This record gives sequence, C-alpha cells and structure tokens, in this order.
Amino acid sequence: MSTILSRRRSVTIMVGIAVIGMGYFLARPSVAHAQGIDQETQFVLNTFAFLIWGVLVMWMCAGFTMLESGAVRTKNASMICLKNIGIYSIAGLAYFFIGYNLMYVDVKEVIGTFKFMYGPSADEVALVGGQAEAAAKVIDGGYSTMSDWFFQMVFVATAASIVSGAIAERVKIWSFFLVTLLLTGIIYPIVGAWTWGGGWLDGMGFQDFAGSTIVHSTGGWAALAGVIMVGPRLGKFRRDGSVSPTPPSNVLVVTLGVFILWLGWFGFNGGSQLALGSALDAVAISHVLVNTNLAAAAGVMAALAVSRPILGRMALFAGLNGAIVGLVSITAGPDIIDHYWAIIIGAVGGVLCTAALKLLEIVKLDDVVGAIPAHLVAGIWGTLAASIAAGAQLHIQLLGVVAIGAFVFTTSMVVWIVLDKTLGLRVSPQVERLGQDVGELGIEAYPEFVLMPEVYDEDEE
Amino acid sequence: MSTILSRRRSVTIMVGIAVIGMGYFLARPSVAHAQGIDQETQFVLNTFAFLIWGVLVMWMCAGFTMLESGAVRTKNASMICLKNIGIYSIAGLAYFFIGYNLMYVDVKEVIGTFKFMYGPSADEVALVGGQAEAAAKVIDGGYSTMSDWFFQMVFVATAASIVSGAIAERVKIWSFFLVTLLLTGIIYPIVGAWTWGGGWLDGMGFQDFAGSTIVHSTGGWAALAGVIMVGPRLGKFRRDGSVSPTPPSNVLVVTLGVFILWLGWFGFNGGSQLALGSALDAVAISHVLVNTNLAAAAGVMAALAVSRPILGRMALFAGLNGAIVGLVSITAGPDIIDHYWAIIIGAVGGVLCTAALKLLEIVKLDDVVGAIPAHLVAGIWGTLAASIAAGAQLHIQLLGVVAIGAFVFTTSMVVWIVLDKTLGLRVSPQVERLGQDVGELGIEAYPEFVLMPEVYDEDEE
Amino acid sequence: MSTILSRRRSVTIMVGIAVIGMGYFLARPSVAHAQGIDQETQFVLNTFAFLIWGVLVMWMCAGFTMLESGAVRTKNASMICLKNIGIYSIAGLAYFFIGYNLMYVDVKEVIGTFKFMYGPSADEVALVGGQAEAAAKVIDGGYSTMSDWFFQMVFVATAASIVSGAIAERVKIWSFFLVTLLLTGIIYPIVGAWTWGGGWLDGMGFQDFAGSTIVHSTGGWAALAGVIMVGPRLGKFRRDGSVSPTPPSNVLVVTLGVFILWLGWFGFNGGSQLALGSALDAVAISHVLVNTNLAAAAGVMAALAVSRPILGRMALFAGLNGAIVGLVSITAGPDIIDHYWAIIIGAVGGVLCTAALKLLEIVKLDDVVGAIPAHLVAGIWGTLAASIAAGAQLHIQLLGVVAIGAFVFTTSMVVWIVLDKTLGLRVSPQVERLGQDVGELGIEAYPEFVLMPEVYDEDEE
Repeated sequence: MSTILSRRRSVTIMVGIAVIGMGYFLARPSVAHAQGIDQETQFVLNTFAFLIWGVLVMWMCAGFTMLESGAVRTKNASMICLKNIGIYSIAGLAYFFIGYNLMYVDVKEVIGTFKFMYGPSADEVALVGGQAEAAAKVIDGGYSTMSDWFFQMVFVATAASIVSGAIAERVKIWSFFLVTLLLTGIIYPIVGAWTWGGGWLDGMGFQDFAGSTIVHSTGGWAALAGVIMVGPRLGKFRRDGSVSPTPPSNVLVVTLGVFILWLGWFGFNGGSQLALGSALDAVAISHVLVNTNLAAAAGVMAALAVSRPILGRMALFAGLNGAIVGLVSITAGPDIIDHYWAIIIGAVGGVLCTAALKLLEIVKLDDVVGAIPAHLVAGIWGTLAASIAAGAQLHIQLLGVVAIGAFVFTTSMVVWIVLDKTLGLRVSPQVERLGQDVGELGIEAYPEFVLMPEVYDEDEE
Repeated sequence: MSTILSRRRSVTIMVGIAVIGMGYFLARPSVAHAQGIDQETQFVLNTFAFLIWGVLVMWMCAGFTMLESGAVRTKNASMICLKNIGIYSIAGLAYFFIGYNLMYVDVKEVIGTFKFMYGPSADEVALVGGQAEAAAKVIDGGYSTMSDWFFQMVFVATAASIVSGAIAERVKIWSFFLVTLLLTGIIYPIVGAWTWGGGWLDGMGFQDFAGSTIVHSTGGWAALAGVIMVGPRLGKFRRDGSVSPTPPSNVLVVTLGVFILWLGWFGFNGGSQLALGSALDAVAISHVLVNTNLAAAAGVMAALAVSRPILGRMALFAGLNGAIVGLVSITAGPDIIDHYWAIIIGAVGGVLCTAALKLLEIVKLDDVVGAIPAHLVAGIWGTLAASIAAGAQLHIQLLGVVAIGAFVFTTSMVVWIVLDKTLGLRVSPQVERLGQDVGELGIEAYPEFVLMPEVYDEDEE
Repeated sequence: MSTILSRRRSVTIMVGIAVIGMGYFLARPSVAHAQGIDQETQFVLNTFAFLIWGVLVMWMCAGFTMLESGAVRTKNASMICLKNIGIYSIAGLAYFFIGYNLMYVDVKEVIGTFKFMYGPSADEVALVGGQAEAAAKVIDGGYSTMSDWFFQMVFVATAASIVSGAIAERVKIWSFFLVTLLLTGIIYPIVGAWTWGGGWLDGMGFQDFAGSTIVHSTGGWAALAGVIMVGPRLGKFRRDGSVSPTPPSNVLVVTLGVFILWLGWFGFNGGSQLALGSALDAVAISHVLVNTNLAAAAGVMAALAVSRPILGRMALFAGLNGAIVGLVSITAGPDIIDHYWAIIIGAVGGVLCTAALKLLEIVKLDDVVGAIPAHLVAGIWGTLAASIAAGAQLHIQLLGVVAIGAFVFTTSMVVWIVLDKTLGLRVSPQVERLGQDVGELGIEAYPEFVLMPEVYDEDEE
C-alpha cells in the first residue's frame, strides 16, 4: 500500500515514535500499562477519526450553500442551492471514478494513475468477506482504505464549493457543472498529487497541513479565473465609477453558513492529522482544534475592527468573512505549539481580507460572496505564515504558492475560455435581470413573499 | 442479555472472527501486537459509536423539520415546526415506556415484552453505583445497554417524521400526535420485533441493514394510508384534471434540510454496523459511509437528469428529493463491497422516485413533500436491490416488503379511520384556507413579512 | 498537573475503580482480556471525547444565534447575528488569555491564577517536538491539556450566549461586547473556580454535573441584571397594563435553533463525564445522553400541555422553550440511574418555565427570548432537583444557588451600571424604532423583502 505518501507521513512518524516509546517502556517493565496502543485499536481509532472528521467536513458543503444562498439576491438563491447539491454530488462521483487515483495512487512527481474507480484493498475485501486471516494484513495498513477515501473526497468538494459563490448570479448552470467536474476530477487531484500525493512539491518540503493552498487557494484561483472571464453582474459597477451595493438577501442564513463552516473546519484541520492512534496524535489534534478556533476568533475581531476605517462602517459581513479568513489562514499550519501565533495569523488574515474586499471593488472584479479574499488571499497568507510559526521554509512555500497558482489559474482559465466559446458561460441579460431562479430553473426561492421591485440604472446596460 | 438478537448479529459474528483471529495470531506469536482489541476497549468503542452515530441520527429530525417547513406554504410552516418537535418528543417517550421492550426484549416470533419502561442492566447499575467488581459482567455485554437504546430510539423518531410531511397542511394536530404515539409505541416496534428483534422474518433471512423497509417503508406506508384517508389539500387537484402547483415556500430551508438528512444518514447507516470493536467493523463502516454517499450523489444526478423528460423541466426539487431517494435506496444494503453498485442503486432509485412523483399526481394523491416516493418507493426498491448486490434472497426480501407493508398499511389505516370517526382527521375548510398557523396555532411563521394574496379556484371547494 | 480538580474528580474515581478492578481481575487470571484499558488508549479516548463533545457544544452557539435572531423582530436580526459571532470570538479569546487560568490553575478556594495565556504542558510540547521519551509523562496526565481547554472554552461561550437573547433589540453593541468580555474573562471563571476548579463550594460538596447553575444560572443572573438595567423595549408594556405581543419573526429559524441546542446538549452533558477511558465512563455517558433526551422530551410535552391554561393557548413557543428548559433542568444531574426521574425533572421544569414566562410579564421584565425562565429558573430547579435523584445535599445545593446568584447578579449589575454611566447601555429611541440593523449596523437582515409597517402606540413613548 504505497498509495498515500505525504498525507500518510505523520502516521509513519507516529508509528516510529510509538516504536521508540515502546522500547523506552520495555526498558521500564514496571510501567506495564504504557506499551503503546495495540495495532488493531490504532486501526479502529485511525479509521473512526477519518470518518467522523470527514462527516464534519461534508457538513461544510451545507455551510457554503447557506453562506452563498443567503448572500446572493433572492432571485438567484434557488440556483445556488441547486449548484451546491450538484457540486457535492459531482465531486463525490468524479473523485471516485478518477480523482483519487490521479492524486494518490502511484504518484510519479506530477500525477498518479489513470484508472477507473477506487476501492478497498484485496485484504479488506477478504476480511469483510469472512476470511478472518486477512485481518493481520489489513491492520498493517493502519486504517481502512475507504475511510481515507471518504476523508479526501469531502476535501475536493470543498475546493469546488469555493468557486460557486464568486461567480454566482450570472453563470450558466451546465457550464458551471462542467467546470466542477474538471476541477474535482482532474485539476485539484493533480495539485494534490504534487503535494499530499508525494509528488515534486512534497519532495522539496512544501508544507500545507490541511490545505490553505492545496484546497482553498486552488478553489480561489479557479474562482478568480471565472470572475475575470464571466465578468461582473449587470449594474454592479456603474459608469460613474461607483459600486452598486448588493447586500446579502438573508443575513441569518449567511450567519448560519459561517457557523457551519467554523464547525466543519474542526474536522477539516483536525482530521488532517490523519491518525488518532497514539498520545502524540491526540495531543497534536488538540493543538490543531485550539489553534483553529483562536485563529477564527481573531479573524472575526480583526475584521470587525478594521472594517470601519477600510469599508466605512463596522461591517457584519466583514466580521463573518473574518471567521472564514481566520480559518483559511491557519489551515496550512494549525499544529503550531505557541497558540498566540494562531491569533496573530488569524488577525492578520482578517485585515488582509478586508483590504482585499476593497481592492476587488477598485479593480472591478465582482466576487459575490468574497470568496477570493477569503480563500485565495488568506490561503496564500496562511501558506507563507506556516514558515513563521510552523517550521516551513519560506522560499519553498512561495514556490508552492506560485506553482500551484500558475497551474490552477491557467488550466481553469482554459476551461472557462473553451466553455465561453462553446456552451457559453453567461446567461442572457434577460435571464440575469429576471434572476436565474425564474429564468433558468422555474422555481423561486421564496415564492410567497412580496419582494422589493428592483431598480436598474438604464445607462448601465 | 438475550434482549437484542438480530441487530446484534454482526457483533456476534465480529466476536467470532476476533476469536478465530486471536487463535490465528496466537499461533504466530511474533505478531505480538495484533491479538484483537481487549474487551473493555471494545466496550467503550462500541458504546461511543452508538452514541455518536445516534446523535447524528437525532439531527435528522431537524432535517425533516426544515425540509417540511420549507416545503409547505408559509401559512402552515409553524404547525410543521410544532409537529416535528412533538414527534421527536413523543417518539422518545413512547419508545422508553413501551416501544423498546416490545421490539427487543424476549421477542417470540412476532412481539417482545409488554413491560413498562426500559433501563440499564443490574450489573450496569451496580457499576455506576460504585461496585467495581460488576465491571467484568458489564464488559461481557459488549456495549452499554442504554447506548443501544439511544441509537434505536432515534430510529423510531425517523419513521414517525416521514408521515408528517406527506399529510401536511390539513391534518389536525392532536390526531396526528395520536398516530405518532401509536406508530412509535406499537406499530414500528412490532415491525422491528419481526426483523431486528429476531422474530419470524429475521429467522427466514430477511435482510435490511439500516431500515429501507423497517424504518422508511414503515413510515411510507403509514403516510400512504394517511394521504388516502385525509384527502388532498383544497384546490390541489382541479376539476379540469390539472394539478395546482404548490412549490416550496422556502427553498433554502428545504435545501438545508436535505443536507442535514444526508449528514445524519452517515450515522443512520454507519451506526447500523452496531459495533466499532474490531478492524472488521471499522472497515465495514468505512464501506457503509462511502456507499451511502455515492448512492445519494447518484440519486441527485439521476433525478436531475430525468426530471426534464418526466416532469417537464430540470427540477431542483427532484434533485433534492434524489438525494433522499439515493439514501433510502442504499439503506438496506450499504455494506456492499463493489461500490459502483451503490451508484447504480442510488441512480435507479432517483429515476423511480421521479416517476413516482408523476404517478402520485395521476392518481390524485397529495403528498406534500414527496415522502411516499422518497421513503416508500425507494425503500421497497432498496430492500429488493439488497438481493442483487448485498447477498440477500429476492423472495425473502419480497416477502418482508409485502408482510411489513400489509401490516403497517392495515394497522395505520385502522388508526386513521378510528380517528376520523372520533376526533376527526381534518381541519375545517376555514382553518385550511386560513392556514393552520393562524387557524389552529395562533402563530404565524413569518409574521412581519408581506405575503402574496392566495387565489382560490372557487369551483374547487 | 494539579490544575483541574473538581472537574477531574470523576476521572480520579474512575482510575481508582480501574485499579480496584484491575486487582479484581488480576486475582482471576482466566479473564485475560479485562485488565482495564491501557493508559495510552485511555489518553486517546479521553482526549478525543473532549474534542468531539466540545465540537458539539460549539455548535450550540449557532443554536443560540438562530433561536435569538428568529425570535427578535426582523429589524434587529442582523445585530443578533453580529452579537453572537462576536460572543463566541470574544469568549474564546478571553478564556485563552485569562479565563482558564483564573478558573482552573492552582485554585485557592475562590480564585485561580492571574497569568497571561494558557498552553500545553512542557511534556506535551516536548512530545510534539519529537521527544518520544516525553510520552510516558504526557500519558500520565490522562488527556491532552488543550483538549480540556477546548471543552471548557465552549462552555464559557454558552454562558455568554444566554445574556444576548434576553436584552436583545435595545442594548448597544459595544457595551454588550464589554459585558461579554468581563463575563467570560472574569465573572464566569470565578464561579467556575469555586466549583469545578475545586474551590470552596466544591469543598462543601456542591454538585453540578454539567452546569445548571454554573453555566446556565450564571448566564441567567447576568441576563436578569441586564434586563432590569436596560429596561423593556419601547411599547412592550402599555400604559393600560396590557402587554404588546412580540412574536418571533421567523419561527423556522427559532425551531432550527432549538434542534441545534438539543443536539449540542449531548456534548454539553455527555462530555461533562470528562472521560471515556473505561467501561464505567461509557456506561455513565450513555445514561447521561438518555436522561438528557428524556428530560428535553418531557419538557416539550409538559410545556405544551400547560401552555393552554397558563398562557391561553397551546403555544409553539412554550413547547420550543420547553425543550431548552428540560435540558437545563437535567444538566445538574444527568447521570441519574432511574431514568423516569429525568422525565419528572424535565416536565416540572417545563411547567415552572411556562409559569415564569407569565410571571415576567406581570413584573414587567422584558426578556425577548425567555432566557431567564429557561436558563435561570430551570437552572435553579435543576440544581435543587439533583438532591432528589442524583444524591446531592439540598442545603448545599441551595447554598450554591444563592452564593453564585448573589455573586453573579451583583457583579454583573455593577458592570451594567458602570456602563450605563459611561458608554451608555441603550440605543436612542430613534435607533430602537428604526431597528438596530439599520440604525447601528447599516445592514438589514432581509433587505429585499417587503415588511409590514410597524404601528406604535404614541402614548407609550
């Protein structure tokens, strides 16, 4: 089972320490009850951890759905719901059919294996088929094969979710689903092969514990390419240079989404320890959860504090985004020991992101939910910050950020351009004005509620 | 401790394998660390798994509440909230007072014990009371008695939740609560006694891993009887043969409900392995979670794909229902090894359900949330499909489907009829037109929002 | 490691029993597999339990946010979202910087240590730094230091959340954040030091398993002081003695909040066993979850039943509050063995709370979400009830209730008064009428929806 290299490294280290520890204890026979955890218990704990943390990460898809569907105007909220249930479904299928194999199976520097479908090992099939003698070999694997698949699958869904919010309210549903398919089946797995799969970037020492760059920046770069290609919503940027405010249509739902994401992130970062089979793992995961929470809390407070000078008022939306930003920022190195660094990293992220929100307006990029500041900017910051507090090398981190950015931005730009020339990326102005819910989908998000009439600047169109 | 038979079977098998495995390893003393997990650790893991998975299943009640309260018209949404918090409360109490004993304690072919209240074993009482010497006997039980009760209790709540959505918007609250009481206290426990309790159907080899038939079809049959007896909502089916569309009043909330159910289903199916005490269990649960997710994803995409030819447009509601359908379909056999079968089973379920949605309209049955297609039709399909991929015998599966269907449909029909003749099933046309929120409950779901005036076809009433 | 005394007691007891049990089994060598769980596995299980249960408790913050933002009028719902994301962030930071040290580190009767920041033990730092020989000492600690911090931190956030709902719709945001800072950084930690930290009340035998008084009444007393100082909302109590109804503006969101809290409470109470390292722990936690659920269910049904005689009609809001009340009531003693007591305690709580809702109206205290009945009244009831069924001494319980009540009410009253004289507590009548969302925050919760015009009694102002 050499399919998982880098993401399994901590397991290897852990086992190594367990062995050393065992020797230590064997030399002290009086400490009879501390010989290290037996292998089968380790196997169960590692597997159960993958599953439980994975379930929490799956929950993040609901978080993105709420965040986005509450952030867009009501006339496009149903479409966001459809997109997000579609993203999670497509991602899960694409990663099963080809993604995981490309990312983790026999990776040679840049890519794994082109093979159709992933499944349990032969020993595991034998074991569940009733051959008890297969247990020893299964247990040697350290964890159940498919529990790892499950945990990796929910990550790819996260990357795809990021794109959806940025280009909301104007992209065609089928074009978007095609982008999702390619992102989750090919682009993200290749980035993953370079790093967690044990490819060239991993060989150079690139560190990204849970995916500030690998997941969040990847989603962010694809989103940036999309935002550029699709263009701003009608009327967002006025001829006189002013920006039309498009406040969230349902603040409660946005807030719920942020809480869901915060909760799911404990699985995202905690599970990325990839093991629960030793005291070392348990201690490390505890640090990860504490740092994750501190960074998010600091992100909220920092974003609230700077929102007044930067954006003109204490902005709830900045605070909510601050939580996401803090979480993304700490994701590359959430296992740092000095917890105050988590606060600093999260707070700096909160400031950077709030500034980036302003910058996007200046360069007239229309990112509906602020996904680019929250995932791309904070993802880069977090990856670099891992060199301050978590022992990574700055130049390797920079190399990883640039290489992955160039690859994802370029490939997804090509995809967007090809789609633009073929299926088309953007709904008609009529559909956009009417809203995608009625125009494309025929179902309003809140059909019984009386809504404000929309006012258009005629000179904008 | 002979109280749990069938649902404990996998534990028994597992222990058997562990013993064999132990012999295997004892014959190979060099593999020092793979002698099987010690009994107390198994006890803790089994118990913790029951509790954590059970907590996820409890969360499904919130999912049903959101799905239903977002699917009904706003004028009945508060009533749905009341019904669902009531369902979960009544189910939990009824199952404590009589349900569990009927289902699992000393089952003789068709029914368990009529006894008031369930509780921990005498050994467990002794242990928590400070008698440490009771620990050995407690540990022999394999898991904490009440952790199993908790896990079984959240299942009965699920069965009852299914009924609520189908007959929403016109049934009287107290009649509905009485149906819930009888369903959760008596009808479902008897079905459970036949199967998971070790009764006659289990003896014949009927297989239903987590309850495609036992939970979902049971709820579905009770719902079908209810829909027939209560009749369609005023104005749903017009005299000219056309069907009045009643779109969800809050699509975001429906979508949230679906995500909650999807997440909770990992507990529903994963927990039905009923153990976490060996590598075998850990591997099996991993397969269960992967299959559960693949079936749901396939259900979404299949339902979206066929919604256009069958329903006339790509329907978000079909896609959302497709997730539920995929989940119900895989529930009878989520432990299959060839994961592509999960995709096929979920996809076929998605197609069947979308067709069933259309069929219901043709036969003029008014199922507000599509509970009958999603839980009854998919439940039957999943139970039969377990004979394709999960080793069950088709004729036994058919027998179980028919026997349980006949029993639940008949008994719940009797309950509905008796209630119709006594308390009455249906609110007055005045209350129905006004909505149950104002008419029965005096609390609007969204009192500050301006709603569209409703238009009635006068010739319908 | 003497930092945790009282909250560690059950661990100590458990280890004691394990040792006894070990002797027991050593005397019976034939029971080879029941020698107690090895220390490292215990360490991992204890730590993982803290983290998983803690994640569920964190989720309660989302529950409070939904409950409150759905309960207030739409014009203040965004402000509730901001307050709650702020509460969780401030609580997490304050407890890291000073709160935990005050509560748990070297407690001398009334208070712990004034020290800046909390962190892992030196042994843990060594272990994660690669020194495997530190493992033995780390494992001796029983669980990871920071996992305990994480679990305690989410509790302090809960206490602060309670205040927010009671004084919603009229308190200034920055004053509220200052109250939150002092409550979570100083007041709550001192209460905690007296009790769970091993201070004087704990020494006398005060029992409060998961915090009926320590968390919920503490929040409730601070809320009561706030409600008195801030005064009722404009127009709530009319000159003619009648009370203006202020129904929840979004019942679905309130209901979702209640389900979230119910789910999170399994972590709140279950995790307060503070260990998962033995069969005894597993059995005890199972009892805790079952009792927690039964009490909540009983609270719902009892509140619904008495709402008609007390409040004039069967009130959904009473039923929803009944769940919270049942949960708070059982929190002081959720480990009782006779589960029917949980039903009685929850049901009595449901009745008391519904009566208290009425009483508040009579004494003209305006508690927007019913936090004082649900958390203060039920918290007191639950703490006293622990002497009926869970073995506590009534006079000690009473002493604890009074002492903590006097301390929290007085100190928080002082804080409210000082803020009233300095920053000011209350927004201007103009802002209050306009709503805090537009008046203070500049962001409406539902900006696209048409809302009912509000009617004011002019003679009220």
